[in-house]
Amino acid sequence: MATQVEIARSGNISDEIRKVAEDENLTAEDVRKGIADGRLVIPNNINRKSRIVGIGKGARTKVNASIGTSTDIIDFDMEVEKARVAEKTGADTLMELSTGGDLDEIRKRVLDAVTLPVGSVPLYQAFAIAIEKYGSPIKMPPELIFDVIEKQCEDGIAFMAVHCGINLMTIERLKKQGYRYGGLVSRGGAYMTAWMSYNKKDNPLYEQFDRVVEILRKYDVVLSLGNGMRAGAVHDSSDRAQVQELIINTEIAEIARDMGCQTMVEGPGHIPIDEIEANIILQKRLSNDAPYYVLGPIVTDVAPGYDHITAAIGASLATAYGADLICYVTPSEHLALPTAEDVKEGVMAARIAAHVGDMIKYKKRDKDLAISIARRDLDWDKQFEIAITADRAKEIRRERAPAKEETCTMCGEFCALRMVSGYFKKDAKKSMVAV
Amino acid sequence: MATQVEIARSGNISDEIRKVAEDENLTAEDVRKGIADGRLVIPNNINRKSRIVGIGKGARTKVNASIGTSTDIIDFDMEVEKARVAEKTGADTLMELSTGGDLDEIRKRVLDAVTLPVGSVPLYQAFAIAIEKYGSPIKMPPELIFDVIEKQCEDGIAFMAVHCGINLMTIERLKKQGYRYGGLVSRGGAYMTAWMSYNKKDNPLYEQFDRVVEILRKYDVVLSLGNGMRAGAVHDSSDRAQVQELIINTEIAEIARDMGCQTMVEGPGHIPIDEIEANIILQKRLSNDAPYYVLGPIVTDVAPGYDHITAAIGASLATAYGADLICYVTPSEHLALPTAEDVKEGVMAARIAAHVGDMIKYKKRDKDLAISIARRDLDWDKQFEIAITADRAKEIRRERAPAKEETCTMCGEFCALRMVSGYFKKDAKKSMVAV
Repeated sequence: MATQVEIARSGNISDEIRKVAEDENLTAEDVRKGIADGRLVIPNNINRKSRIVGIGKGARTKVNASIGTSTDIIDFDMEVEKARVAEKTGADTLMELSTGGDLDEIRKRVLDAVTLPVGSVPLYQAFAIAIEKYGSPIKMPPELIFDVIEKQCEDGIAFMAVHCGINLMTIERLKKQGYRYGGLVSRGGAYMTAWMSYNKKDNPLYEQFDRVVEILRKYDVVLSLGNGMRAGAVHDSSDRAQVQELIINTEIAEIARDMGCQTMVEGPGHIPIDEIEANIILQKRLSNDAPYYVLGPIVTDVAPGYDHITAAIGASLATAYGADLICYVTPSEHLALPTAEDVKEGVMAARIAAHVGDMIKYKKRDKDLAISIARRDLDWDKQFEIAITADRAKEIRRERAPAKEETCTMCGEFCALRMVSGYFKKDAKKSMVAV
Repeated sequence: MATQVEIARSGNISDEIRKVAEDENLTAEDVRKGIADGRLVIPNNINRKSRIVGIGKGARTKVNASIGTSTDIIDFDMEVEKARVAEKTGADTLMELSTGGDLDEIRKRVLDAVTLPVGSVPLYQAFAIAIEKYGSPIKMPPELIFDVIEKQCEDGIAFMAVHCGINLMTIERLKKQGYRYGGLVSRGGAYMTAWMSYNKKDNPLYEQFDRVVEILRKYDVVLSLGNGMRAGAVHDSSDRAQVQELIINTEIAEIARDMGCQTMVEGPGHIPIDEIEANIILQKRLSNDAPYYVLGPIVTDVAPGYDHITAAIGASLATAYGADLICYVTPSEHLALPTAEDVKEGVMAARIAAHVGDMIKYKKRDKDLAISIARRDLDWDKQFEIAITADRAKEIRRERAPAKEETCTMCGEFCALRMVSGYFKKDAKKSMVAV
């Protein structure tokens, strides 16, 4: 069966390509070319058809929500609920990242619960099995990873973060730079680093990269090259270890693309706001414009409990400069497993950031224009129709309802808009009048 | 009695200057020079000594919280509670912006409740009295404004937003540009515009600007030149009306400074992220570096209910580019009068943004460094000691306590940091080891 890349390269338009073109207000030919050149991907799986979502050049910047158990909190119902909340709140993709309990079962339950494309990190399950069977992750036999990847593809995972670019050369950079202020925070990356350090062998996912690609291509799953060296502290941002892995990841991304596998590249993590532009430019340059999937980025380390906000600041800039998929961060990041409420707040913050960035990346500001005119004209129904945060906005207004329907309790009688508009009625340009 | 500006210009160091130098890790001479040149201000009042806060060049970027009744919700206890919450959550200054109820009484109660410097917008009270006495704000006799300014200075207000820069020339720009997508949203600005339009007279605060300055100087109150034309929609950002008012405001700021009155200039409002840098550069250039007080700025119009986040995005950039005082925005902005909980969330978001911006403006990242090392080393007490959001962070961790003290429920046994640190112990640079 031909993959999306193969269909696109043969000059044909798949249903998926047509759907993305429709959703993104692009021509089918633009999307086809984007897929063929590796600048756009559509996460999916021949075994599970999910909602069609285009990620990359020309497409609205997308938001991912990650959920999943830990060894401390294993509550499948809660994770399913979180998956549903993520979908309902407007996430475009979901990652199921459980590490506690029966990982095959929770994956199946989450895949059944949502229509979103679902991603995974197969190394988690491989290391979890190694701990269970052999007592330690460093005892993991390499074949196990490939088995897990195949199994998760069979189950219907649509995109997979695989840590292929972290190798002995990367570890050498880490040592020579004197380790890190924030240590290693990618679980897949840290465990694979421990495995390589203990076994004194290179990363099997790097050494046998073509096997990884072959499996994913068979199911037409998107390969997301994991950022195992991503900075977990702003002081580690863009360090030599991180950039070394990026070089390798973009080098092998080219191989995967040439083999007909849809591919994207992952980035950090923690970046101060004055380094975000350079980070995005570098990824885009090194990868020849592969879709870029960033986690946050979080822009300061001092605000645990509010990292949905620190990440929204970073994500708005990352999007403006060209990131294509934003992984949300919840208020519980660095502290505890998120609740369903955290998931909602995380998705909302990331959606706002992606919109703010797209206002720059695509100069797309039509919703901002329409809601501003409605706000000026005190048309509340219209404002709620356009707002991407309408549920919460309505709730706040309902809780503190104004004395007069057209105003709000912030200003009441003292409404600036109402006071002055009359004086400028005859001056208003046509473009400034509500349609 | 000599004002701070006069003391500084005579080459002397006041107690206030010494305190600011101490807090900001500057030399007293730097602060003296900043005050003398009008690049730094210390809001205060000879009738009410408040906490000493330096705003401007070289000083940590400060956060203002605004509270106050509306005509719809008049609950003095709640406003006093909000003022206390703002102080407790770490606001540096407070604005008391009531428009409903006995305005003298609520001002007095708020001034008694906090140690923060308290600001006001005297036009609100002047127009409120005009409505009560003469039936409409447009009937306001000019003398009334000066009386109100004097009364509020006597009461102990430390900084005052006065809308002096909005005049007939500004209104002409507004008409010629075809009004606005978002209308006028500054209450003082809108009411004064209505007053000028109806009375066909220029703004008394502009025409008799020296009287305004004389009163404020007498009490050594900081004049904050209000942004009556501030954009209330990203589509109105940096339009000709806004820039016209900025020209006038910076022109008269120079007059006020020359007269020995501490002065700052206010800015918007709503700005898309790609215009923030230009906005700050322009204010700094036109004003010869007067302290810049921005409201947010909010970077998109589509997220009511989450405008503490849209404003945090804008404020982090505004701070990075050089803004000196950030007015918080609460989740209730555009919808309803804020609650005490809204005040807390607004202050936290603005403090995070100011910190993120100061990481760039001053390359100040020592707290970020220390907390990152503590996080890597799983030292939770130290993390909570450094975090600017410690209360909420501790709460989240307590609600979902981990099985093992050193980890958290996000990863549990699957802790990346714990897994890998051992392998790099001997590589770690001295700077990367906890102190």
